[in-house]
Amino acid sequence: MKTLFTSIIVLFILFSTAANSFGQIDKNKLEKYNSVADKLIKTALKDETGYKLLKDLCAIGPRLSGSEKSLKAIYWAEKKMKEAGFDSVWLQKTMVPHWERGAKETAFIAYPANYKKKKLNIAALGGTVATPKGGITAEILEVKSLAELAGKKEEAKGKIVFFNRPLDKTLVNTFSGYGGGVDQRFNGPVEAAKAGAVGAIVRSVTTNTDNNPHTGVTGSEKGVNLIPAVGIGIQDADFLSNAVKKNPNLKVTIHTYCRTLPDAESYNVIGELKGTEYPNEVIVVGGHFDSWDLATGAHDDGGPCLQTMEVLSLFKKNNIKPKRTVRCVFFINEENGLRGGLEYGKWAEISGEKHIAAIESDRGCFTPRGFYVQSDAEALKKMQSWLPILNKSLIDWVLPGGSGADIGPIKNAKALIGYVPDDQRYMDLHHSANDVYSAVNPREMELGASAMAILVYLISEEGL
Amino acid sequence: MKTLFTSIIVLFILFSTAANSFGQIDKNKLEKYNSVADKLIKTALKDETGYKLLKDLCAIGPRLSGSEKSLKAIYWAEKKMKEAGFDSVWLQKTMVPHWERGAKETAFIAYPANYKKKKLNIAALGGTVATPKGGITAEILEVKSLAELAGKKEEAKGKIVFFNRPLDKTLVNTFSGYGGGVDQRFNGPVEAAKAGAVGAIVRSVTTNTDNNPHTGVTGSEKGVNLIPAVGIGIQDADFLSNAVKKNPNLKVTIHTYCRTLPDAESYNVIGELKGTEYPNEVIVVGGHFDSWDLATGAHDDGGPCLQTMEVLSLFKKNNIKPKRTVRCVFFINEENGLRGGLEYGKWAEISGEKHIAAIESDRGCFTPRGFYVQSDAEALKKMQSWLPILNKSLIDWVLPGGSGADIGPIKNAKALIGYVPDDQRYMDLHHSANDVYSAVNPREMELGASAMAILVYLISEEGL
Repeated sequence: MKTLFTSIIVLFILFSTAANSFGQIDKNKLEKYNSVADKLIKTALKDETGYKLLKDLCAIGPRLSGSEKSLKAIYWAEKKMKEAGFDSVWLQKTMVPHWERGAKETAFIAYPANYKKKKLNIAALGGTVATPKGGITAEILEVKSLAELAGKKEEAKGKIVFFNRPLDKTLVNTFSGYGGGVDQRFNGPVEAAKAGAVGAIVRSVTTNTDNNPHTGVTGSEKGVNLIPAVGIGIQDADFLSNAVKKNPNLKVTIHTYCRTLPDAESYNVIGELKGTEYPNEVIVVGGHFDSWDLATGAHDDGGPCLQTMEVLSLFKKNNIKPKRTVRCVFFINEENGLRGGLEYGKWAEISGEKHIAAIESDRGCFTPRGFYVQSDAEALKKMQSWLPILNKSLIDWVLPGGSGADIGPIKNAKALIGYVPDDQRYMDLHHSANDVYSAVNPREMELGASAMAILVYLISEEGL
Repeated sequence: MKTLFTSIIVLFILFSTAANSFGQIDKNKLEKYNSVADKLIKTALKDETGYKLLKDLCAIGPRLSGSEKSLKAIYWAEKKMKEAGFDSVWLQKTMVPHWERGAKETAFIAYPANYKKKKLNIAALGGTVATPKGGITAEILEVKSLAELAGKKEEAKGKIVFFNRPLDKTLVNTFSGYGGGVDQRFNGPVEAAKAGAVGAIVRSVTTNTDNNPHTGVTGSEKGVNLIPAVGIGIQDADFLSNAVKKNPNLKVTIHTYCRTLPDAESYNVIGELKGTEYPNEVIVVGGHFDSWDLATGAHDDGGPCLQTMEVLSLFKKNNIKPKRTVRCVFFINEENGLRGGLEYGKWAEISGEKHIAAIESDRGCFTPRGFYVQSDAEALKKMQSWLPILNKSLIDWVLPGGSGADIGPIKNAKALIGYVPDDQRYMDLHHSANDVYSAVNPREMELGASAMAILVYLISEEGL
């Protein structure tokens, strides 16, 4: 770090040229908007409201759809939105899948004996089934892809198929890395079942180097009996791969205790500030409130939900009355069903309101980078013209790109928007025991809340 | 996180429009540059060379100027540069200040007795002096600023002045927050000494909420006898502030054991790849190799040094022979003297070479954001035209701004450039026991190395 003697005050000229970039905003408005943006940021960084709420939320526990704790969290959120003084707060009912992990799953090397029943660090994949009472014990067929399995169907019969292609860590965007690896988890087990395998082990799709298994939903297909499928920590994946090379007849025993219960009643949690000039024009800002069950989903997606709630709180605290209705939605069941998003989308279609924009925060609570937008060119250009204001909260770009799963079903919205923070650490913790409160940095989280608050404010003032 | 069903491939149109932004680069060159940038990034993320070296470097220990371990690290770096196959590697001698902390300092509440000699978490500030053998025991005068002290000079006599203004955490840029608080540490103790105080306690300038004290250099003035000065963890700063309010006659005892020895011989470590076309035109890329002594300086500035060394390694590994000479410099003694930077600057002036650019990495190993540039408008514009290529490594902007302390003394360079990663977590660890290897994320560090490698490559090819 530069010492005091030599430190140089950084000249951030972006702002000095801001006025030139604002074709459609006059100078007085620009001054006002800059001032509001500054206030929103300062309030967020000072109060850390979202970050403090996240501590309480994580104390409740994981929020897997249909679970008791997910309901506890839902009622907690409803209470907190009411306490924050929003104009209306309500629960929107939907039925959700109800899958349970049951007792802690186990796996060990059953043969040869020289491995002394070495334990493997695994976690059942969401939606999978229990093993028979004595577990399953079988030889391993390691493959690196679905294509490789397709060519080895005969070999797979009676075996446990081990999908072991690592996430490509040379890709800069970790979501791309994840996207390139996750077919093994989603499609692998069902394809293995179709080939006659008795179980599936899937290498965790992660950038981390630890041995924590990552879960996530695995697919099903009509007429195919599911087989037990588990994620495995990458250290144990490497160990198993080496062991199988040395001992092709090596056998693994797996016990899982999962079950799928009848669909359960659950809820989206919704709170709003009514628009003062165009109450029928709605800006949605939200995330998904369910999490996987291996941790408390601090980054996926508890923290991001609370960032979107904080947008409304920041308005309240700064006495900002939005011209258009600003609505925060905690969607339930993104992880294994998307029922909350579908329910809201259905309702939005018949509500008689005009949804002008929906913003989703579902990429963790890291430092802001940009917004991805699905809209026409005009709306995109309008939002890009706001960059000098958005940049105050470290938003560097507004670009076309995917928004978010939960807001996808909102038809006819002028713009669907995805908030994009830095992603380098996200896949270290995603869907694993690492996704906890202590992995969240308060400043990074609060700057994200500020970024969305500024964008929502500008849309509310200027329309799209 | 979006499930597979609903995941949407992100369209990053920036790249598709890249060709339009390149007034001065033809299409073939652009293709080549993009391809080289991709290779540099992939190699960095795959091999993690810098990150692996950082583990070894941190195992040596802290690298305070003049210390035995700093010399050990210097010889280690020389060896590693030679092993990496650089064209030339050499040490550049300079004398450096040699301050030692000595035995672990202590502080406790000496009066009233009901505090039971509660210990305070402190660390002597760099450059300060030892207390007399029995320590110092005195009442506390708490102030929030140098100005407040100036108005209370009489009160300060015989007391320990306690500078307790917190870092302003509502500022988005944590370097601005730091800059706003650090006058207490640098100027506070000497001003307290001039007022007749017997000691100084300075609240740590940090965004963290833990109780670790942060050190850093404190100033001196001709004719002023220094008084013992210590940094204090912010939890204990708050505790002390409350305790003094309740007990205005409260006394604190401090023991420090520091000493300043005669200047010691030390070295900048320099390695280079000779330019194939313009060997006399030099691009410097470097950081400072000394650290404070409370930790191993993984972010400040060991990791960033190794990023700059990796620039050359990435060239070697990809068989890139730069047109202009690319020189990595590990400057010694930025923290408490800048002697390495001054020595290099002096040498650069008489070396007969032309320094066209110097890039410093001294803001931690976090995810890339941009480059700050001190240059004429033309060179700035040229570098900005490279943004579509730089953006591959997550560089979003190239803007006028301060570069770095060590490269400041390089006169007549066409451009002085500061690499700017995300800064939100930097002041959590800066100058404290938190600045260790485990606080570094390999991907974030390696993307920084890539960003600088791409910029150096483009300058080497295109000039400035």
